[in-house]
Amino acid sequence: MIRYLEGPAADVYLNRAYATLAAEGLDPVVVMDFFPERDGVISGIDAAAEILGAVLGEGDTVHGLRDGDTMQAREIVFRVRAPYLRFGRLETALLGTMASGSGWATAAREVVEAARGIPVIAFGARHVHPAVGAIMERSAVVGGCVGVATPAAAALAGLPSASGTMPHAMILIFGDTVSAALAFDRHMDDDVPRIVLVDTFKDEAEESVRVAEALGQHLAGVRLDTPVERGRVTPDLVKEVRARLDLAGHAEVTIVVSGGVDAARIAEFVAAGAPVDSFGVGMAIAAARPIAFTADIKEVAGEPRAKRGRIPGAVPAPRLAQLI
Amino acid sequence: MIRYLEGPAADVYLNRAYATLAAEGLDPVVVMDFFPERDGVISGIDAAAEILGAVLGEGDTVHGLRDGDTMQAREIVFRVRAPYLRFGRLETALLGTMASGSGWATAAREVVEAARGIPVIAFGARHVHPAVGAIMERSAVVGGCVGVATPAAAALAGLPSASGTMPHAMILIFGDTVSAALAFDRHMDDDVPRIVLVDTFKDEAEESVRVAEALGQHLAGVRLDTPVERGRVTPDLVKEVRARLDLAGHAEVTIVVSGGVDAARIAEFVAAGAPVDSFGVGMAIAAARPIAFTADIKEVAGEPRAKRGRIPGAVPAPRLAQLI
Amino acid sequence: MIRYLEGPAADVYLNRAYATLAAEGLDPVVVMDFFPERDGVISGIDAAAEILGAVLGEGDTVHGLRDGDTMQAREIVFRVRAPYLRFGRLETALLGTMASGSGWATAAREVVEAARGIPVIAFGARHVHPAVGAIMERSAVVGGCVGVATPAAAALAGLPSASGTMPHAMILIFGDTVSAALAFDRHMDDDVPRIVLVDTFKDEAEESVRVAEALGQHLAGVRLDTPVERGRVTPDLVKEVRARLDLAGHAEVTIVVSGGVDAARIAEFVAAGAPVDSFGVGMAIAAARPIAFTADIKEVAGEPRAKRGRIPGAVPAPRLAQLI
Amino acid sequence: MIRYLEGPAADVYLNRAYATLAAEGLDPVVVMDFFPERDGVISGIDAAAEILGAVLGEGDTVHGLRDGDTMQAREIVFRVRAPYLRFGRLETALLGTMASGSGWATAAREVVEAARGIPVIAFGARHVHPAVGAIMERSAVVGGCVGVATPAAAALAGLPSASGTMPHAMILIFGDTVSAALAFDRHMDDDVPRIVLVDTFKDEAEESVRVAEALGQHLAGVRLDTPVERGRVTPDLVKEVRARLDLAGHAEVTIVVSGGVDAARIAEFVAAGAPVDSFGVGMAIAAARPIAFTADIKEVAGEPRAKRGRIPGAVPAPRLAQLI
Amino acid sequence: MIRYLEGPAADVYLNRAYATLAAEGLDPVVVMDFFPERDGVISGIDAAAEILGAVLGEGDTVHGLRDGDTMQAREIVFRVRAPYLRFGRLETALLGTMASGSGWATAAREVVEAARGIPVIAFGARHVHPAVGAIMERSAVVGGCVGVATPAAAALAGLPSASGTMPHAMILIFGDTVSAALAFDRHMDDDVPRIVLVDTFKDEAEESVRVAEALGQHLAGVRLDTPVERGRVTPDLVKEVRARLDLAGHAEVTIVVSGGVDAARIAEFVAAGAPVDSFGVGMAIAAARPIAFTADIKEVAGEPRAKRGRIPGAVPAPRLAQLI
Amino acid sequence: MIRYLEGPAADVYLNRAYATLAAEGLDPVVVMDFFPERDGVISGIDAAAEILGAVLGEGDTVHGLRDGDTMQAREIVFRVRAPYLRFGRLETALLGTMASGSGWATAAREVVEAARGIPVIAFGARHVHPAVGAIMERSAVVGGCVGVATPAAAALAGLPSASGTMPHAMILIFGDTVSAALAFDRHMDDDVPRIVLVDTFKDEAEESVRVAEALGQHLAGVRLDTPVERGRVTPDLVKEVRARLDLAGHAEVTIVVSGGVDAARIAEFVAAGAPVDSFGVGMAIAAARPIAFTADIKEVAGEPRAKRGRIPGAVPAPRLAQLI
Repeated sequence: MIRYLEGPAADVYLNRAYATLAAEGLDPVVVMDFFPERDGVISGIDAAAEILGAVLGEGDTVHGLRDGDTMQAREIVFRVRAPYLRFGRLETALLGTMASGSGWATAAREVVEAARGIPVIAFGARHVHPAVGAIMERSAVVGGCVGVATPAAAALAGLPSASGTMPHAMILIFGDTVSAALAFDRHMDDDVPRIVLVDTFKDEAEESVRVAEALGQHLAGVRLDTPVERGRVTPDLVKEVRARLDLAGHAEVTIVVSGGVDAARIAEFVAAGAPVDSFGVGMAIAAARPIAFTADIKEVAGEPRAKRGRIPGAVPAPRLAQLI
Repeated sequence: MIRYLEGPAADVYLNRAYATLAAEGLDPVVVMDFFPERDGVISGIDAAAEILGAVLGEGDTVHGLRDGDTMQAREIVFRVRAPYLRFGRLETALLGTMASGSGWATAAREVVEAARGIPVIAFGARHVHPAVGAIMERSAVVGGCVGVATPAAAALAGLPSASGTMPHAMILIFGDTVSAALAFDRHMDDDVPRIVLVDTFKDEAEESVRVAEALGQHLAGVRLDTPVERGRVTPDLVKEVRARLDLAGHAEVTIVVSGGVDAARIAEFVAAGAPVDSFGVGMAIAAARPIAFTADIKEVAGEPRAKRGRIPGAVPAPRLAQLI
Repeated sequence: MIRYLEGPAADVYLNRAYATLAAEGLDPVVVMDFFPERDGVISGIDAAAEILGAVLGEGDTVHGLRDGDTMQAREIVFRVRAPYLRFGRLETALLGTMASGSGWATAAREVVEAARGIPVIAFGARHVHPAVGAIMERSAVVGGCVGVATPAAAALAGLPSASGTMPHAMILIFGDTVSAALAFDRHMDDDVPRIVLVDTFKDEAEESVRVAEALGQHLAGVRLDTPVERGRVTPDLVKEVRARLDLAGHAEVTIVVSGGVDAARIAEFVAAGAPVDSFGVGMAIAAARPIAFTADIKEVAGEPRAKRGRIPGAVPAPRLAQLI
Repeated sequence: MIRYLEGPAADVYLNRAYATLAAEGLDPVVVMDFFPERDGVISGIDAAAEILGAVLGEGDTVHGLRDGDTMQAREIVFRVRAPYLRFGRLETALLGTMASGSGWATAAREVVEAARGIPVIAFGARHVHPAVGAIMERSAVVGGCVGVATPAAAALAGLPSASGTMPHAMILIFGDTVSAALAFDRHMDDDVPRIVLVDTFKDEAEESVRVAEALGQHLAGVRLDTPVERGRVTPDLVKEVRARLDLAGHAEVTIVVSGGVDAARIAEFVAAGAPVDSFGVGMAIAAARPIAFTADIKEVAGEPRAKRGRIPGAVPAPRLAQLI
Repeated sequence: MIRYLEGPAADVYLNRAYATLAAEGLDPVVVMDFFPERDGVISGIDAAAEILGAVLGEGDTVHGLRDGDTMQAREIVFRVRAPYLRFGRLETALLGTMASGSGWATAAREVVEAARGIPVIAFGARHVHPAVGAIMERSAVVGGCVGVATPAAAALAGLPSASGTMPHAMILIFGDTVSAALAFDRHMDDDVPRIVLVDTFKDEAEESVRVAEALGQHLAGVRLDTPVERGRVTPDLVKEVRARLDLAGHAEVTIVVSGGVDAARIAEFVAAGAPVDSFGVGMAIAAARPIAFTADIKEVAGEPRAKRGRIPGAVPAPRLAQLI
Repeated sequence: MIRYLEGPAADVYLNRAYATLAAEGLDPVVVMDFFPERDGVISGIDAAAEILGAVLGEGDTVHGLRDGDTMQAREIVFRVRAPYLRFGRLETALLGTMASGSGWATAAREVVEAARGIPVIAFGARHVHPAVGAIMERSAVVGGCVGVATPAAAALAGLPSASGTMPHAMILIFGDTVSAALAFDRHMDDDVPRIVLVDTFKDEAEESVRVAEALGQHLAGVRLDTPVERGRVTPDLVKEVRARLDLAGHAEVTIVVSGGVDAARIAEFVAAGAPVDSFGVGMAIAAARPIAFTADIKEVAGEPRAKRGRIPGAVPAPRLAQLI
């Protein structure tokens, strides 16, 4: 993997620096510090340490926070002390790993905090390139999500299984929500919860009761994913669906809310006391802005050094644990 | 690849829909339309067609725009007509490919347009996970950038080589910019342009003249990457460096500007008439928000159908070319 | 009527001024000018002239604009020249008649202009006290509305009949929209258009098609009055209902839009090209702010006079026609 | 009165619903709940109960808040339980009575609260149609005003008499404020307080002292109604008039302030400690926006029912008292 | 004068630089350029040249714009070429002369332009220290004012006399405006225009007519200076005073407006078509923010030189004329 | 001096009032009160009392606050009781003295409070006309500054000497900061602190260390005055210079910050904990808006009197001390 992370994947100027320094025979031990541009939740640091583990040698050290820790803007979160040529070309990969992961974890944390204890599932693999879909969902778990949508992410995050209901496509092919739900119920393993998407053809409140009548005790929940053209899911809609299910004797059926859900909208549901059982969140996590990290050399061959604008020297960083 | 893009990488509910429909023996030909949430430049559509090429069969068709085309919010940009079970599980991968790629290409286009003809190089691989670094840079080229920072991206984008200067790290290790520049000049191949980073130890204007004096005709350019603690690069700084280089007889040395550059700041350089020869852009492209795409079934077995909120039927989409 | 408009209905200080002046034997001919505080469409001026017609005498004159004319802030719109004691106590009633009427007509004009030719019906009698319900709706017609909701207003505005569809209450009592629509069709006179309210129990698009199938050629239109809890009526909803009706072969069924409609929202429908056949507008007209009018004496016994802040003398007012 | 409130005054669709239901023989007992769109002070509910009292029958009930109570947005404030055909056509009149009345009472409450105990008189009959002038002023008393301008309103609100001073018109006809004031004093009954308007011809401070010298002990107060062209009444003006009256030995003369007074301006007077004895308020109450009320059927023949967007069933409403 | 402008009036560091350079025997010919921080009208440049005239020697040159010229932010407006020690200590005085003068002239220009040809008199000596009162008023004339309030300023600006009416103090001592005006008329020379201040005791419109009746043909004009407690002078007030004077046969009496007048308020008078004959402006000119000037050495002993941030060398400045 | 402050320096209308009153033989004892338009720190009142001391006579009194006292908008801060003709013509000078002085003192106070104990030096003589340069700096000391830049101001403010470092001009002439610093050190008296300006040619951090190495124990401090083209002085720059000086063993060298410094920027330095030893402030004090003062006659010959808008009579003013 290392070969792939440096070589062609590295910024070419790192390769050129490597060649120049090697030709000059210059390979001092340096201290390189990493810090983020803004506050957040770090993720990707464990992977970064793993990458370094494959290249560092005797006496080299790596200190850092751990995935899931909060961090402040410009705080030192990761420090490598080693001969430069051993790891210099990995700078691109190390920074990128932390940047994307921390962006996703930070966004997830914000959403989860807004939900005040209502479980949040990360549903947004479809909004990022498939090469990082599972990594994004795993970072969301680092930030506090309790479930993910893809089996690959579930494996990466150490969850027993992925979470999911049923897509609009299936219901459209059946042409009726109740027929689709009954078929789903017939063919799925017992451990797959029967959560039926109820906004495809009919008003959500009407369809929820129809589905509950049809599946009876088998029905675990309904998912509301009302499109923007119908006003999205609102606290009032959740309250009404709950009331109509209860009036019809289906108080045990849960309600999952999805569709353009973000921290601000979750806060509205919470403030309104809407009886949501879980939220599915897509873009609000998947589209998180990466958090830019900077790597600065602070010491060269035991002597404090820094570029203009930075304080020379490796200052104590007591929050960091030794990782290598 | 396909196995990897569906299976574990797919949202689990697509796998469940597949199982349910297959068990029911339901596999009608459907028309699935894809549209973006907002205006932009599409990228990822060629890759999406390639993914589908591996699974579709006789008589199935795919129409679409091409990478680099502009698109409007909610415009149909991609259409698949095929039996659902052949491609349904790929929905996650298809959407994600377009989402990330189009986000990056759109941001790149915005930056490139602001630059009014001054070349822009994508420098931001370090701000995204290494699994998508090259894909991001290639999308930036689709959006109009003329160069990329990593060899992997150069290959993917069909460019002869990656672009780069030298990192602060190398200069810090040498302890002096002129010494570092001379070493770089000694060891690099002839086809590597000598562009020296001049903000590490001294004032940029002073260092530019020192480097020009030292390298003479070998010097191709200087890169200004002033940190925010020193006020970033400004139009006035570029003008002054240009003037001092010219006064010292180095009118042929070019000036590369980098460091937190985005469309708004580029527009300021252009409006002020600052003599920039090229821009290096990182976060402004790498951190682009993905553009969410939606895939809607509009026809099932020849009959118009759609979920609530969408118009049933496959309306004509004359901008689309047949891709498969 | 006059007795009622002055005496107890007049501001008591007018009665006291009357008594004082009469006791002093002071009753000069005065010129009293009326002007509005802001731009608008005047309404109530015809009624004001009628009130004065019952009390003025030989040689007295009244000039004014006419109902439906536009007026500018502080422009003279009405002028009475007569002995003061003949009409002074009517000041409260004259001002009030113009204030309320002009407020409503002005709001109606704004709504009608936003609709760019799509007919607007005033539906807001329920938002004002029943003593002025018909007057409000008649003022809306002065402002440009083509229909009203109450028979009393239709009579007052010279329209052949009131406009209306059916209330939610009736459909709730039937328990099903189609049953209610069929009963309505059975019992209404032939000249009552069959316009069915389609948002009570089911999704509007679904219900529209159900109703169209049930009533066939009898159906004139559907009314969309989606509650705010379901996102109100949107341009997208109208387009979709239109498309689904057309797909089902009911292209001749019209679409009426109501529910919290105002000029800004109408402008959105128009800008989006939503195929609305008419709008029903309530609060946006009924809740219009009255336009305050001021009555100023400008001449007493032939001599220019005015209070501080006003220019003495009856300046020419060429837009005014002689009403009495 | 009932005939007039339903029949031609009702929205025609209520008449049509009546005819349809009657023809079908459908007349179930329903529960109809009324709620306002926004917070406020309710007024008109007593009149609404009176209207219903004339049509309801044995066993029918009406519950409600009482005029002057505060209410919250969407709170149930009024509930009718009766066969629908007995009262359904009155919906327009019931809603309109509450809408206008509550709008005025709520605005009055806001003004009165701003005045922190300084009495407020409603002076705005001239700003609304004479058919509702007295109703508006009576609603202002419900909201907290202590006086009204018209005798009709005084009767309706149970006040001993209307409040008033003298109009500019009378002073203009006399041509001098002191002459007018002396004539007023000669001819008015003893129980009419001598409050003289002092801004017609001269500076208010100068005129106040002139009037006080002329009327001596007879003078009860002065009214400041400075036009906007002279900067309106300001806290500084009131303080100066008070000081000049006091310096001249007229400390017992009160000061009434009027002219474009609203809650915000009253708050400025109060904050500045201006010695105002009472405020006369016109447009700020008279032009209040009506509060839209909605009437929803929640139960039909004993069974919970509601349209989409509303919770079915008559939930407990413990703040309501039985009115019928 | 020079001794006073350098020595104790100079920033002490200039004195120290003088001593150091003199001790080292360093006195090269330098080019010093002056530029302003923002756009404006320059004033003080003529005085600056006069100051330098007293110290420069053979062959030394000064180029510059002239008082009253417009200038752009950062444009070179003044250039000295001379041995440094001859003039270096004058930097504080030269910059300050331009800073204050240009601030006042620029503000005056803004006010004068707003007045669209109506004459503006500078009345603000009382708002600045008496040591610069006349200099401020003279700068206002440079900016476009046609009159000043103090004889000292009139002399400095080359005007035949100062402009003025009468102060409130005089009228207060007389106790009546008409008595004061008659006394003023009795004792002033014939060439002093009789312009009477009319807001001291009575309403301005009333007092204007009283004064016009009393002074007859002697009256040249009235000044309106209404205090903020009475709403300041407004366009409506001017129109009314004009109308009442005209109605009384005094069409030839002019109207001067003062009291808190600035460019924004003048623009309102102009837009409203108020018949103002001249404006008296105080704080809007007197309180103008100085325009900071910077003096930069650009050439030393014939060689381009500049501090960081500035372009070395004396670039051509074709707008400048040779002053010395 | 008095002759100069009245006569030609007075508003001409005061001279005319003097002539008129004298001709009429009117010279009553009056009370004239002075108040400011806004809150602030008063300065100029001691000078005003001194001016009056030269003209008042037996039995005349002056009361006032003292320079440096805070004052509130419209509070009486100064009161003269004397025959009018003795001092009336001085109104222009008295008001102007307080206006300019209080503006500067108030701005200085704001800056000093932002600095939370870090000393502030007034450096802005170059931004005001030299006739008031020393007066401005003395007012800054009244407001809380501990130093001034000109010897004249130091004398006026009772300070032992002026404060200053060295100008860019001197360093530019030397062509090198270290050479200039060494020459300065050679020639200055021992009591002149060696504070070297370090931003002329090189990066401030680099130059600071160079200068410290060259001057050794002689160096008292460095001044940072980075131009806006290099991002001005920032908290980060100060911290880094501090750190690099400390690393090089020069912990005793102080840091002076100047260049566009105002209260808001000082607050940022303080909030960021930047180790600034003193601030030099120019425009933020020198360009302060004067505070307009008004002088009102409140009593004439023992009797309360005032113009419209003001309360007649000399109310108690217990904060004022007797000055004459």
